[in-house]
Amino acid sequence: MDAPVLLTGSEGRVGRAILEHLDDAYDWRLLDREPPSSDPPGEVVVADITDEERMSEAVEDVGAIIHLAGDPRPEAPWQSVLRNNIDGTHTILEAAVEAGVEKFVFASSNHAVGSYETDARTPDIYRPEDDFRLDGTELPRPGNRYGVSKATGELLGRYFHDEHGLSVVCVRIGNLTKDRPPRDYERGQAMWLSHRDCAHLFDRCLQAEYGYEIVYGISNNDRRYYSLEHAREVLDYDPKDNSAEFDE
Amino acid sequence: MDAPVLLTGSEGRVGRAILEHLDDAYDWRLLDREPPSSDPPGEVVVADITDEERMSEAVEDVGAIIHLAGDPRPEAPWQSVLRNNIDGTHTILEAAVEAGVEKFVFASSNHAVGSYETDARTPDIYRPEDDFRLDGTELPRPGNRYGVSKATGELLGRYFHDEHGLSVVCVRIGNLTKDRPPRDYERGQAMWLSHRDCAHLFDRCLQAEYGYEIVYGISNNDRRYYSLEHAREVLDYDPKDNSAEFDE
Repeated sequence: MDAPVLLTGSEGRVGRAILEHLDDAYDWRLLDREPPSSDPPGEVVVADITDEERMSEAVEDVGAIIHLAGDPRPEAPWQSVLRNNIDGTHTILEAAVEAGVEKFVFASSNHAVGSYETDARTPDIYRPEDDFRLDGTELPRPGNRYGVSKATGELLGRYFHDEHGLSVVCVRIGNLTKDRPPRDYERGQAMWLSHRDCAHLFDRCLQAEYGYEIVYGISNNDRRYYSLEHAREVLDYDPKDNSAEFDE
Repeated sequence: MDAPVLLTGSEGRVGRAILEHLDDAYDWRLLDREPPSSDPPGEVVVADITDEERMSEAVEDVGAIIHLAGDPRPEAPWQSVLRNNIDGTHTILEAAVEAGVEKFVFASSNHAVGSYETDARTPDIYRPEDDFRLDGTELPRPGNRYGVSKATGELLGRYFHDEHGLSVVCVRIGNLTKDRPPRDYERGQAMWLSHRDCAHLFDRCLQAEYGYEIVYGISNNDRRYYSLEHAREVLDYDPKDNSAEFDE
């Protein structure tokens, strides 16, 4: 990808994991509401995702967008996710197709399907011997309003793909932690995503060719109830880490 | 159902079709932004669906809600469907669970899946000999922003069902016209819903027992690409009309 890549929410946890490994790989344009905390590896735009004019400027000459910006709190109140996550994603998608951007990588979330984790299924589905799998073809079952907003972002991506031919991939990001998976937390180990697998996955989202896809973003964990098949198949995702290697 | 039934958007086309046949069947509470145009068959509430306080009052002592209110225009602009359809549906769902309402019948739309009607598939899927079917288990593919808002309403219903146990049925309403199906319009004939089938379907939504369901709301048309199986199975829906009977 020769054209600049716009990374929204670059100061967030996912943004930092991506830049930690891919800082030199792309011509980055980094957008966040907050000014950068350290020396930024690219052009900086400080703007709010719901500001239509600023978004039109931010997407100019961009080849691809990784859209992470939004309220990241699973317990975020409705009015915040309505504005920042739902309306914000619509604003940047509209700006993207207006500017002729080719690829849109959307940070969706495990919370879009959180209510599949019913009392009857858990904790079994977090364990290696269990073969329950979500593969991205199932209807969303959001576990909170944040999850509703992420599933709505997927719908918006579907619409902008179907209507405008924008290539869209939605990554249902698992539990991103640095260095090692969470301790004493089976759910977190089942959906662990290491920093290097995260960066590799988003790199593949920028490199691969696709139409509209929903994939799960986790490491190659022995414990898991999200299928990695689709990410392997359409993105050539090849995760290196596995939460089982960190068992106490 | 002995407790009152709240019908939002009672002045709209679907609302009038329901009341035309079921005016005496329930103890209606009729809510609309507009005052009633004719003699209303129940208590009247004139209020905006996004007004939290008024919605809390409107759902008091209600056993079930048929939620039709919203911007009904397929070409409605984003800010209108964001406010009236997405935020409005959240407002009334929140009021409903707060008040202990048991059943929530959501007027979704064929536009939630409009982009399945690709150039490659049409007009074949509108014809009786074609066996392509959507059955409600497929991921939505909205054909416009209105369709995005309806698919988001379905997501909100899913969340409130999973989180609060509210019984929710989403009816993807086809093409509702009075007396006869549209002329010279294969698509409209394929998704025709007669007034009496419409009223019968919503009656079944109030009478049947279910958890969370998505059904298609069309008559028993020879032409169709929406399956009626699920509505028959979970609601005992038994449509009487068929657009083929009106062929010129």
